[in-house]
Amino acid sequence: MNPSNSQRCEQSGSSADATLLDRYLQVRRHTETMIAPLNPEDMAVQSMPDASPVKWHLAHTTWFFETFLLSTSLPGYRQFDPSFGYLFNSYYETLGPRQPRAQRGLLTRPTVGRVLAYRRHVDTQMSTLLKSGLSAETEALLRLGLAHEEQHQELLLMDLLHLFSQSPLKPAYDPHWPDESGRSGRFKRLPGGLVEIGVSTGDFAFDNEGPRHRVWLQPFEISDRLVTNREWLAFIADGGYGRAELWLSDGWAMAQSGGWEAPLYWVRDDDRWQEMTLGGMRSTAADAPVTHISYYEAAAYAAWAGARLPSEAEWEFAVRENLLEQVDGVAWQWTQSAYGAYPGYRPAGGALGEYNGKFMVGQMVLRGGASVTSAGHSRPSYRNFYRPEQRWMFSGLRLARDADLNRPVPQALLVSIDVKDAHYD
Amino acid sequence: MNPSNSQRCEQSGSSADATLLDRYLQVRRHTETMIAPLNPEDMAVQSMPDASPVKWHLAHTTWFFETFLLSTSLPGYRQFDPSFGYLFNSYYETLGPRQPRAQRGLLTRPTVGRVLAYRRHVDTQMSTLLKSGLSAETEALLRLGLAHEEQHQELLLMDLLHLFSQSPLKPAYDPHWPDESGRSGRFKRLPGGLVEIGVSTGDFAFDNEGPRHRVWLQPFEISDRLVTNREWLAFIADGGYGRAELWLSDGWAMAQSGGWEAPLYWVRDDDRWQEMTLGGMRSTAADAPVTHISYYEAAAYAAWAGARLPSEAEWEFAVRENLLEQVDGVAWQWTQSAYGAYPGYRPAGGALGEYNGKFMVGQMVLRGGASVTSAGHSRPSYRNFYRPEQRWMFSGLRLARDADLNRPVPQALLVSIDVKDAHYD
Amino acid sequence: MNPSNSQRCEQSGSSADATLLDRYLQVRRHTETMIAPLNPEDMAVQSMPDASPVKWHLAHTTWFFETFLLSTSLPGYRQFDPSFGYLFNSYYETLGPRQPRAQRGLLTRPTVGRVLAYRRHVDTQMSTLLKSGLSAETEALLRLGLAHEEQHQELLLMDLLHLFSQSPLKPAYDPHWPDESGRSGRFKRLPGGLVEIGVSTGDFAFDNEGPRHRVWLQPFEISDRLVTNREWLAFIADGGYGRAELWLSDGWAMAQSGGWEAPLYWVRDDDRWQEMTLGGMRSTAADAPVTHISYYEAAAYAAWAGARLPSEAEWEFAVRENLLEQVDGVAWQWTQSAYGAYPGYRPAGGALGEYNGKFMVGQMVLRGGASVTSAGHSRPSYRNFYRPEQRWMFSGLRLARDADLNRPVPQALLVSIDVKDAHYD
Amino acid sequence: MNPSNSQRCEQSGSSADATLLDRYLQVRRHTETMIAPLNPEDMAVQSMPDASPVKWHLAHTTWFFETFLLSTSLPGYRQFDPSFGYLFNSYYETLGPRQPRAQRGLLTRPTVGRVLAYRRHVDTQMSTLLKSGLSAETEALLRLGLAHEEQHQELLLMDLLHLFSQSPLKPAYDPHWPDESGRSGRFKRLPGGLVEIGVSTGDFAFDNEGPRHRVWLQPFEISDRLVTNREWLAFIADGGYGRAELWLSDGWAMAQSGGWEAPLYWVRDDDRWQEMTLGGMRSTAADAPVTHISYYEAAAYAAWAGARLPSEAEWEFAVRENLLEQVDGVAWQWTQSAYGAYPGYRPAGGALGEYNGKFMVGQMVLRGGASVTSAGHSRPSYRNFYRPEQRWMFSGLRLARDADLNRPVPQALLVSIDVKDAHYD
Repeated sequence: MNPSNSQRCEQSGSSADATLLDRYLQVRRHTETMIAPLNPEDMAVQSMPDASPVKWHLAHTTWFFETFLLSTSLPGYRQFDPSFGYLFNSYYETLGPRQPRAQRGLLTRPTVGRVLAYRRHVDTQMSTLLKSGLSAETEALLRLGLAHEEQHQELLLMDLLHLFSQSPLKPAYDPHWPDESGRSGRFKRLPGGLVEIGVSTGDFAFDNEGPRHRVWLQPFEISDRLVTNREWLAFIADGGYGRAELWLSDGWAMAQSGGWEAPLYWVRDDDRWQEMTLGGMRSTAADAPVTHISYYEAAAYAAWAGARLPSEAEWEFAVRENLLEQVDGVAWQWTQSAYGAYPGYRPAGGALGEYNGKFMVGQMVLRGGASVTSAGHSRPSYRNFYRPEQRWMFSGLRLARDADLNRPVPQALLVSIDVKDAHYD
Repeated sequence: MNPSNSQRCEQSGSSADATLLDRYLQVRRHTETMIAPLNPEDMAVQSMPDASPVKWHLAHTTWFFETFLLSTSLPGYRQFDPSFGYLFNSYYETLGPRQPRAQRGLLTRPTVGRVLAYRRHVDTQMSTLLKSGLSAETEALLRLGLAHEEQHQELLLMDLLHLFSQSPLKPAYDPHWPDESGRSGRFKRLPGGLVEIGVSTGDFAFDNEGPRHRVWLQPFEISDRLVTNREWLAFIADGGYGRAELWLSDGWAMAQSGGWEAPLYWVRDDDRWQEMTLGGMRSTAADAPVTHISYYEAAAYAAWAGARLPSEAEWEFAVRENLLEQVDGVAWQWTQSAYGAYPGYRPAGGALGEYNGKFMVGQMVLRGGASVTSAGHSRPSYRNFYRPEQRWMFSGLRLARDADLNRPVPQALLVSIDVKDAHYD
Repeated sequence: MNPSNSQRCEQSGSSADATLLDRYLQVRRHTETMIAPLNPEDMAVQSMPDASPVKWHLAHTTWFFETFLLSTSLPGYRQFDPSFGYLFNSYYETLGPRQPRAQRGLLTRPTVGRVLAYRRHVDTQMSTLLKSGLSAETEALLRLGLAHEEQHQELLLMDLLHLFSQSPLKPAYDPHWPDESGRSGRFKRLPGGLVEIGVSTGDFAFDNEGPRHRVWLQPFEISDRLVTNREWLAFIADGGYGRAELWLSDGWAMAQSGGWEAPLYWVRDDDRWQEMTLGGMRSTAADAPVTHISYYEAAAYAAWAGARLPSEAEWEFAVRENLLEQVDGVAWQWTQSAYGAYPGYRPAGGALGEYNGKFMVGQMVLRGGASVTSAGHSRPSYRNFYRPEQRWMFSGLRLARDADLNRPVPQALLVSIDVKDAHYD
Repeated sequence: MNPSNSQRCEQSGSSADATLLDRYLQVRRHTETMIAPLNPEDMAVQSMPDASPVKWHLAHTTWFFETFLLSTSLPGYRQFDPSFGYLFNSYYETLGPRQPRAQRGLLTRPTVGRVLAYRRHVDTQMSTLLKSGLSAETEALLRLGLAHEEQHQELLLMDLLHLFSQSPLKPAYDPHWPDESGRSGRFKRLPGGLVEIGVSTGDFAFDNEGPRHRVWLQPFEISDRLVTNREWLAFIADGGYGRAELWLSDGWAMAQSGGWEAPLYWVRDDDRWQEMTLGGMRSTAADAPVTHISYYEAAAYAAWAGARLPSEAEWEFAVRENLLEQVDGVAWQWTQSAYGAYPGYRPAGGALGEYNGKFMVGQMVLRGGASVTSAGHSRPSYRNFYRPEQRWMFSGLRLARDADLNRPVPQALLVSIDVKDAHYD
């Protein structure tokens, strides 16, 4: 278990019986703890259109609370700075124009110092609001704001790693950042049938995780662990990046034009592979799960391995049955499911309806959670999504395959589940 | 019924008891009939990377028979021209390098005349092969080749319409090309449940249409007809192209950057809309189904109409139950289903495994068939697919929505199906 | 002397005492003779934005006579087709909108047949006009129109070579197209001083060739011949394409991004270089002048050879003194002069003022004439111009250098010119 | 006179009798004074590929002294940080690979603090070197290094203005930045003849300013002042940005595609124009010289005004004759001269030969000097150069025209110069 994991576990553990205010302050302070190793220059620069400056993450998450809670629910609240609505709105068309995403790095002002003052201002006001008690609707917005900030905690590290990987100096965010470890997985067989997936009620979840609904699954097998760097090296050694027959058409074109021959942050140094990590440049750890791969690479690997990616329903079903290891805290896992609405899904009205709904095309679903995901943030119904060519998130893969009735299964791996139970009735 | 439809019906009618050779010659001659109004210049030019010159379609469909049938199954067969393997391979990586797709229009040689000689040569040799009798495997390849040429018959007209629409002269392919007509649709309610979709056995189908498999459907409602130009004009008049809240995020960006304010071939002439058709520029026919829209536009329209697009399983289920009008021969209909493999799908080995399988990401499924689709080519399990921003195919939409138990349903529209029957056991 | 040269000489010789009508018909018929080896597909396609389809050249040169002569000077003249003004205007803003240059290849209609009918129509009407006698102003326009068509005769071959070079079949325009020959040059020394360049009066010239004006030249040396392929091969063998210190900054960037390692149409075949020519693919002729090089390459070569390119004034002065061989009919020769207005230059009013004046920035001057230049078209004051990265014209180079008084000069090469004479007073 | 001008005058005044060390420290301290209003974020970000971060300017100018003086001339000198050679080399191919120009903004490390430590280190070592006495060659390199740092002082302000203009907050670099003032100019007539231009000997100059050489000039007229904003507004009001006949072909295409309708930093606010300046957003000052215009705009304006731009020889000749006002300290002035080598120019060997020589194509010469140019940096022979579409430098224009002998000249404006004197013999 790595330091940040243990830190996250404490946070998670203590939050069990925390008041809402405690929980709010924990999440907010954790964000600020994360920037300790950084200087203002590191926080101002944007390394590609998909990424944002660290400073922008700090301000945008704060703007969320100001816009959706303080401005609407705290009587007499005055905005910290009226220009921030334009600067730190991410993509809510309903809330008016905003700084274009690809130009967030041009905002040298406000400085980091002023953004931190903004955070303190909002935190003070939020404390007042929380002490006054919240309506159910406002509490739901608060929980959404906290989940939102946790998402940005992960994005902040993803974006920082991309920025640092672009520097010839290859700076380490944290020289003690732990290596991942792991081992190769084994297939578990599941009977399929009529199962239910999606969130039901109670605890916080994003709107795209529901409604809970029935799905029919064929019998299938799924690996209990993620594919490792060692296995990926075998794929490379077997010419996997140069064999068109393994690749989807768009993926092959992308791999050719981008000169892909390994995961995003891998650099060949003579005969050895090194990898840019949050701990700086390091030798690739053979037993760690492979990360920073696109959907296209994941699908090509699966074809090479005589398998396929699981559907998100298969993944969720297997997780709910407690059959898998390395579910979260390791790497997001590509599924073969395109991101779309569940049956019966209706986006919320107003700005918050834009939170998830408007991205429901052209993206693939990832499940699980990564080493940089904030503790307690993910859950079995969580649907992450990225475009099939993206690689800067901590993405890996787990294999699945159709259950072949003629393929002998070691008794130890055969899982027997009563389909009735699988209904979660 | 328009002339080309009646022509297609004869063709279809007579093919019922036709020998394989008759069927082969019918399809091939139909392609050549299609180019009668064209001159060599019209057949040489490529109007955009997605499109191909007419001449290339003529040669590529011929190359298919030469490569997959004559070269492998006719003893002593000699290639018409060894360079054609490079020139007219479309996308089969397994068969070696080929002329890049976007540069097909640079092939001024071979001329149309020589391509027609190529067709005659291959037809003569194919006659010899067919008269000698075919193995089951070879016959399957023949049927695939014919389905393939029928696809290109449609592509030829799509590409030609795009080319002619780029000309300031707006030439008519056929001045007598019929207008479509139609009327607005009504919703039919279906109970859902556990249904089966996909092709089972017997008649020819592409590999991506199977395997037949079970899908669980929620109760839903689906329109019996397609959305008309009149309805689309109301969407435009209501500002549909300028209201971000109706659009998917990528679609909104595309509509803004592309300056979209109507379907692809619509041109505003003062207060009236005109449309470039295979009959030249014409006034937009109010009661005809809207065509040449992207998935993004279809989804925005559906949101505006308080509905959604059907899933491909809903569409196929409703068609198999004979509840819909305007199923094929009108326009391809966008569904909300991303194109992917059915459970248990395995691509064929070798070059033919590339036919459908390698495109299974980033595309959306369309169902039905268009006015330019060759007669008898489509069927209820047929899965067409395009990227969500494409518009030059004859694409329209049919609405669906979740069955709202509180919404009163006129008795006449309530369809009762026993779920058991829906299994198609 | 090659066939086309001899052909051109006859043409040129007979035109000395030809009537204007004879001269008109000679030029027009020569254009039509040039397309004999081509089929309609070859004439419809555009291979890059800088190039135009052959069919467009045929029509545009005709439109020039129709627009600037028939429409204004022939009473009762009616346009052949009103749409042609839009289709075949090249760049005259004054004459209204026109088909965008990069989309000339989309004009499959009018066909080649109809364009040839257009040419016959205009030729008939021009005969009527010419027989009726011309004003001095109209005669000047006629001579401009003929010079314009001769320019397009050269462009037609340049564009065709580019188109055919893009084809995997590498068609020959004329299998008997002669190879060029030559030998290495020697430097001639000139004293410089106050000289005059530019056209004075009398014979036809483009407006950019005047006014005649004085230029002060330092003593210089200039080669009597062009650089050969053999010499260029030595530059390649010496790593010339990979040595940044020889290149201009923009040129180096272009060579790197474009992967340049030889002139445009050179292809390495194992150890030998081949070259795409109007005679098809051929072995590079060692003694022929190098062609199809950019200004960047010419400047890098000159730096490598310890020399420089001549200024256009040096070039013209040396030619007028009859000191050079291979002046025209071989290859256009890059100079180090940026294209700009001569002192006192004033563009003509109206559309014809656009003929040359509006291109006077960002281009470099070439002098001389190429093997594909129409006979009698060029002259010592002729200023051709292209952007420094362009390569599809028949461009070569001739070296020059500052006269080094310490460098011994063989008596035979020392040219003595009285500076007074150099004034051309 | 504005504050920064007075500051620069003191600097300039005191440097007359300063020792080399004093002069060195003055220039270096001036750079550091310039960043006082900036925070680290402002200094890290790059707003476009043509611009560089302020921090990079601070380090690159220091690297110049370290590389060309300390490393070669100070015995036992050790580099401050070996990685800086890669990070802060600008374009010297001879010195090896370097950070790509467009990615200088990705260098969040080293921080501003460390860059300032680098400056202190180099300054200390340079003091040691300078106290030990310099060879003539080393002193020439020192003077080049100082001129180089002065160029970057101007670039730093140009780049900063561009960065701040991209911010929705429109920050002021210096709220007290003075407005320029001026008045319309009058034409002075000069006789032309054989004149000499270029630097001769003695004081420091860049290599591209020589050799001194003769040029023949026709009689011409040149305005004694620059074009003002008031005059530019008349050009706009007369539709100047929309009249193709005034523009060069490439300029017209650029103006159309870029949507140009005013100088770079002008923003229309209802009926008034505002301008982003180093003092923030301000109303456009009618009597100030127009700045931030491209060559294309300057040439179009001149055509509209019935004039032209001066050649660089005309400009230099008129300045040497003391006929002009607003020569430097106002705005760089476009000339109609393409940037190229003077007759007899030979680039220095080694890395320094890259300083100016490799940019000699595709750029136009500007003469004079701007309000942001460091005091004493410019001189009559100074040749600045930019691409014709660039606008972020402080560029303006001065008109010229051919002397029309029929145009009456007020006696007061007629300048009589004996051509003999003009030779500067």
